[in-house]
Amino acid sequence: MPSLTLADLQAHLGGTIRGNAGVRLDGAASLEQATTGQLGFLLHRKYLDQARASAAGALIVPESLNDPLPQACLAVANPHAAFARALALLHPEPRSAPGIHPAASVATDCVIDASARIAPGCVVETGARIGARCVIGPNCVIGADALLGEDCHLHAHVTVQHGSVIGNRVVLHPGCVIGSDGFGLAREKGPAGDRWIKVPQVGRAILGDDVEVGANTTIDRGALDDTVIEDGAKLDNLIQIAHNCRIGHHTAVAACVGIAGSTRIGAWCQIGGAAMIIGHLEIADRVTISAGTFVAKDIKEPGVYTSVQPLMRHADWLRNASRLRHLDDLARRIKTLEKQIAGKPAPT
Amino acid sequence: MPSLTLADLQAHLGGTIRGNAGVRLDGAASLEQATTGQLGFLLHRKYLDQARASAAGALIVPESLNDPLPQACLAVANPHAAFARALALLHPEPRSAPGIHPAASVATDCVIDASARIAPGCVVETGARIGARCVIGPNCVIGADALLGEDCHLHAHVTVQHGSVIGNRVVLHPGCVIGSDGFGLAREKGPAGDRWIKVPQVGRAILGDDVEVGANTTIDRGALDDTVIEDGAKLDNLIQIAHNCRIGHHTAVAACVGIAGSTRIGAWCQIGGAAMIIGHLEIADRVTISAGTFVAKDIKEPGVYTSVQPLMRHADWLRNASRLRHLDDLARRIKTLEKQIAGKPAPT
Amino acid sequence: MPSLTLADLQAHLGGTIRGNAGVRLDGAASLEQATTGQLGFLLHRKYLDQARASAAGALIVPESLNDPLPQACLAVANPHAAFARALALLHPEPRSAPGIHPAASVATDCVIDASARIAPGCVVETGARIGARCVIGPNCVIGADALLGEDCHLHAHVTVQHGSVIGNRVVLHPGCVIGSDGFGLAREKGPAGDRWIKVPQVGRAILGDDVEVGANTTIDRGALDDTVIEDGAKLDNLIQIAHNCRIGHHTAVAACVGIAGSTRIGAWCQIGGAAMIIGHLEIADRVTISAGTFVAKDIKEPGVYTSVQPLMRHADWLRNASRLRHLDDLARRIKTLEKQIAGKPAPT
Repeated sequence: MPSLTLADLQAHLGGTIRGNAGVRLDGAASLEQATTGQLGFLLHRKYLDQARASAAGALIVPESLNDPLPQACLAVANPHAAFARALALLHPEPRSAPGIHPAASVATDCVIDASARIAPGCVVETGARIGARCVIGPNCVIGADALLGEDCHLHAHVTVQHGSVIGNRVVLHPGCVIGSDGFGLAREKGPAGDRWIKVPQVGRAILGDDVEVGANTTIDRGALDDTVIEDGAKLDNLIQIAHNCRIGHHTAVAACVGIAGSTRIGAWCQIGGAAMIIGHLEIADRVTISAGTFVAKDIKEPGVYTSVQPLMRHADWLRNASRLRHLDDLARRIKTLEKQIAGKPAPT
Repeated sequence: MPSLTLADLQAHLGGTIRGNAGVRLDGAASLEQATTGQLGFLLHRKYLDQARASAAGALIVPESLNDPLPQACLAVANPHAAFARALALLHPEPRSAPGIHPAASVATDCVIDASARIAPGCVVETGARIGARCVIGPNCVIGADALLGEDCHLHAHVTVQHGSVIGNRVVLHPGCVIGSDGFGLAREKGPAGDRWIKVPQVGRAILGDDVEVGANTTIDRGALDDTVIEDGAKLDNLIQIAHNCRIGHHTAVAACVGIAGSTRIGAWCQIGGAAMIIGHLEIADRVTISAGTFVAKDIKEPGVYTSVQPLMRHADWLRNASRLRHLDDLARRIKTLEKQIAGKPAPT
Repeated sequence: MPSLTLADLQAHLGGTIRGNAGVRLDGAASLEQATTGQLGFLLHRKYLDQARASAAGALIVPESLNDPLPQACLAVANPHAAFARALALLHPEPRSAPGIHPAASVATDCVIDASARIAPGCVVETGARIGARCVIGPNCVIGADALLGEDCHLHAHVTVQHGSVIGNRVVLHPGCVIGSDGFGLAREKGPAGDRWIKVPQVGRAILGDDVEVGANTTIDRGALDDTVIEDGAKLDNLIQIAHNCRIGHHTAVAACVGIAGSTRIGAWCQIGGAAMIIGHLEIADRVTISAGTFVAKDIKEPGVYTSVQPLMRHADWLRNASRLRHLDDLARRIKTLEKQIAGKPAPT
């Protein structure tokens, strides 16, 4: 790992140094775990006590923070972003040597930039194109005629199906699948009764620039038109994006979310973990869906939307849940009571 | 892509041509995206305006539709199925050359039909058998003694564990896992306190003919008996099928569904996305489970079943959800009120 | 498969034989499927009729069971654990020959015990260490500087990302991903508007001894500190464990569960399938979360906790669910009625 002074970090990140600009740092850690050679960070005053107790050699802090701290500090307008950049400087990703590893299988007509890295076990099929400085990790499969831009990083075991279009600076985590067939079935009478026949999925999966896709997430290709993940959208692990969805730019989707076919989600949305969104919906820009929420209708206004059950001790849940089956009946009985009361003289 | 006339399509699909039978088509697209050389389709009168505005060169329409359309039309009894078949004609899957790629690792005692294709990076273990015209995509792993029928298509990164039995015309999408161990644990006192010991999973996963399994879906082998997916069942992405489940023929399961151990689901069921079904249940034939629904008891009658919370603005949810913890109390208070009212003379 | 007498099993498992100790067994099966050469088991008296009707050659039964049975029996204190051990004896895993398959790609500076097995298609990156008797299945990827203990079994297509630390006797099922990046984003103003920048994930994923991880499950590395799965924890398929989680020793997590970042779960917990737990929570030891439950607050006491909706016919659900949006209003109306009634003379 590199060794940098706080002044070196300031040269990259801007901000104001308070204290010893020459303190040497060779890594970053949490306030609790940091040692004297490490950088920590403080996002909020509520962590002041932890910061004071921390052995970190230096801290990134908000410029609005005026409280004295024992460590050298770099005060910046956006400490979260500055710390992210400091981490990238202190823990740089190892550079892979460019070139196609001899244990990769690459079709002869692929166009692979000389600065790209194709790791062992990769299979790159006919007509695929891979841009400058891409790193394709071990055992990835790039299908026929797939197109990858520049500076993409595919981790191990990624599948990019035929004809997919991937922008620049896209990060695909292990086991994710881009461009798999959507779930398209037509019902038909056959000689031995009804049966499903497969509707061929001939659209593409298109990922914009700066998209990130988590481990084992699946993004289906379009049925006829394309599935589109716009620039800067970020998807966590184990997410399902069905055919013909469109995810707006800079929308962030947490893990275990499912989005059914042809749903369009706006820009700068935040979809909480395990939320489930049915098909053919329109979700406006800047909508936040709470974790665990089930969305079955369009959302036309920005805001926070929720539909989860509160947690209870199981015995309490048993008592309460059975009432849910009779909620309509309860509501009618209240109405009857109100009518009965209203028919009487007012209480004295 | 092939170029076909509408008359060529009629020769394969049946139906009646209205308009120019000689219009040439070299692909298919949605009504919005289609160009003059492309085929579109119309399932329902409600899309008539879109159809009239479409640049598509020809349309597949229901034979019951009598409205005039500017395009040449092929009128058929089942337009969805006809369009699926037309897509397969206009967008045929590229044929892979048969044979075992030199970058595959195949145990010497496997029986692989000469017409099958084994892509680079595949590992086929001892005793496996692969039938005629199968296409095994890049980096698949076929375990010892696994048996694949004819005309199967395994996409990239599929795992078929040892001893699994796969029928004919089965399609397995990238990253799916067939025959992984079920979650079987026995608790035991050890020298240093209690511990879990693994219950070996010695059953098989058996997939019938015409089964389709989505990307990154997992189907566990049986614990003692087998896990069975019957003929024509269709599974979408990121589904979990636990040990000893049986999924009935032609049942369709949407993405993100989990089905716990030993549950048996009937034929022609439709399980909505993200539904969760606990173990040891029996679900009858022709049951529809709504998306997001939690099933914790047997379902003995066909029909539609649901258990989801309606979406609310978060502020409304906060007000309402806290009442759920006291629903039983509310019901009791209604009963008390009813008794109090009943004890009085009827309103006049 | 080996052939053992009931006396042979007793020698390994202890217990008392009732009936013919010499009965030969060459496998195990369920009561319904077992044939005369197979062992069955009976956990509870309620299966007595099935046991009597079973063709099994011998049974493992609880020592507390005194009912006569037609089969030879081995009576033990813990029949579930004894049957698990008997299965391992009757269905032993095939031993893989040690050594690195020539179709694996192993960096020259890896330290791989001579008794370990590296299957074809594996990629082991620089600095990785793999302990004695490990079996690394086909097409696995072991990242740089990852450390595996002894007697681990990685099935096909497992990804262990760089720097991960895996204990002894760990079992990783196909497609699982250990040590992928967590979902860390910082928002920043860029020249063309706001954007997300990636927060580098520099912690590790650490798995203790005897951990089991199911197919296509994902365990993210820590952001700064580590993600930790303690000794003896068992994870089923398609689970998401986010960055900086800690899962306590011997906790069992069923399939399709999501646990968001920095949540700490105690020891000997049982998390039901498809439960979802938000981030930054503390769950005490010996907590049971019901299947499908959403957890959004700390749980400080052992016990069973639940938050699911009961299943209804769809028509009933429609009537009841709309009332949920007005539950707060219903509760207020009950209170009003109570006040009105209280203002009157008590019923006579």
